[in-house]
Amino acid sequence: MAQRTPRIHAVDLIRKTRDREALTADEIAFLVRGSVQSGTEDGIPLEQLAAWLMAVFHNGLIPEELAALTTAMRYSGEHFDARDLGKRSVDKHSTGGVGDKTSLIVAPIAAAAGLLDPMISGRALGHTGGTLDKLESIPGFRTDLSLAEMRRVLERTGACLVGQTASLVPADRTLYALRDRTATVESPYLICASILSKKLAAGLDGLVLDVKTGSGAFLRDPEAARFLATLMVETGTRAGTRTVALLTDMSQPLGATAGNWLEVAECCALLQGRASIAPNDDLLELSLELAAWMLLLGNTDADLPAARKRAEHLLASGAAWESFQAIVAAQGGDIRALDQSLNQSFGKSFEGAGGPGISRHTPVAEAVFRAPASGYLAHLDTTAIGWAVQRLGAGRVRAGEAVDPHAGIVRHARLGDEVTEGQPLFTLYATNAPLLAEPLRLFERAVDIQPESIAPPALIGEVIKVEQR
Amino acid sequence: MAQRTPRIHAVDLIRKTRDREALTADEIAFLVRGSVQSGTEDGIPLEQLAAWLMAVFHNGLIPEELAALTTAMRYSGEHFDARDLGKRSVDKHSTGGVGDKTSLIVAPIAAAAGLLDPMISGRALGHTGGTLDKLESIPGFRTDLSLAEMRRVLERTGACLVGQTASLVPADRTLYALRDRTATVESPYLICASILSKKLAAGLDGLVLDVKTGSGAFLRDPEAARFLATLMVETGTRAGTRTVALLTDMSQPLGATAGNWLEVAECCALLQGRASIAPNDDLLELSLELAAWMLLLGNTDADLPAARKRAEHLLASGAAWESFQAIVAAQGGDIRALDQSLNQSFGKSFEGAGGPGISRHTPVAEAVFRAPASGYLAHLDTTAIGWAVQRLGAGRVRAGEAVDPHAGIVRHARLGDEVTEGQPLFTLYATNAPLLAEPLRLFERAVDIQPESIAPPALIGEVIKVEQR
Repeated sequence: MAQRTPRIHAVDLIRKTRDREALTADEIAFLVRGSVQSGTEDGIPLEQLAAWLMAVFHNGLIPEELAALTTAMRYSGEHFDARDLGKRSVDKHSTGGVGDKTSLIVAPIAAAAGLLDPMISGRALGHTGGTLDKLESIPGFRTDLSLAEMRRVLERTGACLVGQTASLVPADRTLYALRDRTATVESPYLICASILSKKLAAGLDGLVLDVKTGSGAFLRDPEAARFLATLMVETGTRAGTRTVALLTDMSQPLGATAGNWLEVAECCALLQGRASIAPNDDLLELSLELAAWMLLLGNTDADLPAARKRAEHLLASGAAWESFQAIVAAQGGDIRALDQSLNQSFGKSFEGAGGPGISRHTPVAEAVFRAPASGYLAHLDTTAIGWAVQRLGAGRVRAGEAVDPHAGIVRHARLGDEVTEGQPLFTLYATNAPLLAEPLRLFERAVDIQPESIAPPALIGEVIKVEQR
Repeated sequence: MAQRTPRIHAVDLIRKTRDREALTADEIAFLVRGSVQSGTEDGIPLEQLAAWLMAVFHNGLIPEELAALTTAMRYSGEHFDARDLGKRSVDKHSTGGVGDKTSLIVAPIAAAAGLLDPMISGRALGHTGGTLDKLESIPGFRTDLSLAEMRRVLERTGACLVGQTASLVPADRTLYALRDRTATVESPYLICASILSKKLAAGLDGLVLDVKTGSGAFLRDPEAARFLATLMVETGTRAGTRTVALLTDMSQPLGATAGNWLEVAECCALLQGRASIAPNDDLLELSLELAAWMLLLGNTDADLPAARKRAEHLLASGAAWESFQAIVAAQGGDIRALDQSLNQSFGKSFEGAGGPGISRHTPVAEAVFRAPASGYLAHLDTTAIGWAVQRLGAGRVRAGEAVDPHAGIVRHARLGDEVTEGQPLFTLYATNAPLLAEPLRLFERAVDIQPESIAPPALIGEVIKVEQR
């Protein structure tokens, strides 16, 4: 005789979370299923989901609940599985920052190492850039691949860089939109489930999380960042994906550029081993360290130093550059555009640049932000700098808006540098001069020069992982 | 030049409450207006209201916020104002219990004292009875009066006992239904605003709150009851209504009966000064004390002892009984039904009763619950007894269901009484025998007899009021 299943009522589950009683995996799956079907007769009304989200905001979730939430969301729609391709799948995720373009470097390295990287990325929103917008500045590049197209690109090149499809993790779409309207976005538990459900839906053996702290990060407080990182590492590991998190510094833009095509061009130069327009050792270092962890989780090497050596070799040998070109070509991008950019004077002083090599159409306006005093570059409000980049045209105020592929900034100095009054610190590019005014004012408030020298923060801080048992 | 009003966004208000930042009165009025219009373009979506309610559940409200919420809800629709009748308006509200029928006694006393009591009451839900259901057991009695009809009854009789109209406090209807679905019913702040907005919408000079504690109360914990009482007294006083709260005992049914017509009959006996079917000094004492406070707040007397003396006199003289009959008649009730009940053997042993005097049609089934042992009646689970009464047919499982006017119980013993095995403790009445089975089982679990004598809890505990400044 079949056992009778007691009917679950959403209000009882809200009450449990409200009162810090743990929900079972079945109860959480009921909520997630109900969120996908919200608005239909089988769904849970948005107001009940909203109350539950606010209860989670206040009371959090225990690890078992968080794992169950992540898993239920992960499988709430279609999901990707490339295990039959016979390679290990790894990926990297960053919590977002300004000039953060490591995805374009680590995915080709992972592919060149014989791993798969089915990378599903996001768009620019708020003060941070988005990988999809950067890639779409390459003529012809398509990010809206179906799961079948993803698989073909992966099979051919070892990596793909795509956007979320409508069928992937639909629960996150409902819940994210609801969090946005109900002031529950900032819950680390809900952030963790949102990020990991989407990442794990790609079917990963290993995942490296780049959790940013500092003035340009969403979580500026290092304790909050460490807490989120720990939640994600524990939850990813529970879900059967080897997961590590690196706490990294976002108190200044990463690398020499911020802006869509500018960042692609910077990555092409780095992948080709060419000199950059401005010092970008930070981008190189972080990319290699993230790639090394990806390779280690992908079992290419016995330890981190060996994996790091392999990543360095794949970059220096041009193998990663070959991989990048193959990925761009497989996703419909015109690789001649990449060459074109590199044929130009992409080196030395970028000031006054803006020729055809920098963007597909010429930015007609530029401005230089100069050091307002002599001293040491002590502090940058990197969130304000991110907003300046977006206001130049590189980002969007509302989801769905078009972005300007060539707007952006080039950075000429780093935190801790000694600077002289009048020295160029940043060059700004936009399609017309009026667009430069507000970003320049943002820079005035964002840059702080002090007479005393300061030690810049370490690029890579703590590594958070679950010890093997 | 007109000053620009910054547009208020609901999500920002949710965030403030979430982060324990106080909302302004304007911001709270925005939420309340938005709740009334929810579902329209000018309204606030239910999911945002739900998230706000859950944030209030966790973080509470400061006194200024609670007063603003109560006031905004009070004026969210039509409201009642009888100031032009030239009398002071007073009322009493109870948080609900089993056998709690004091409304039927205190309203006639207040009216007989020359005050107005525009009493807006509720229906049975859960384990507690509802004043409207009790009154509707009188043939012809109408509780669905319009504000204009209310005014006419008040003008003629000094009191009315009616249900909430659709136009009165519409914000509470939206918010209460939402709280019910989102597990935010139990917040003392939201309970306070819900109760007081409805009570104050009747335009009161004075309000006496009967806040129950003990096994049959919604708030069994005395600390929780005291907290709610204090919130309500402070909030009522801020709103300009003299407000006091009495913490009273609900660890046993109040008076001799529970059930709709049984309670009306018990009140008629008490108002006529006739012997009851079982000792009900508790009902008499609490009714007189509540009435005395109503009179005092209505300025009929200089102090509480004088007001108490007046209340006793109005009851003993038959003036309150005259008032009650006038109210029943003015609201369409057949006062001959009241007499009919009283012409019967409503005294001595009620066991075996059930004739035409007890109900308008005869309950055909009854059962006696007898003491399972000799000893002292030490504890009653009065919530379970309330459920037993409802399951006999006196209450409803879902809003809108019909109730049986004659189902109910008569109590033959009080907490602390010495009882002998087999002695009748309760008599149960229903329309048919099968309806008696579950309630009898509930009684088995609800009654606890111990060998040692116990002191019953005091009927009236603390009085909570704001000292005059």
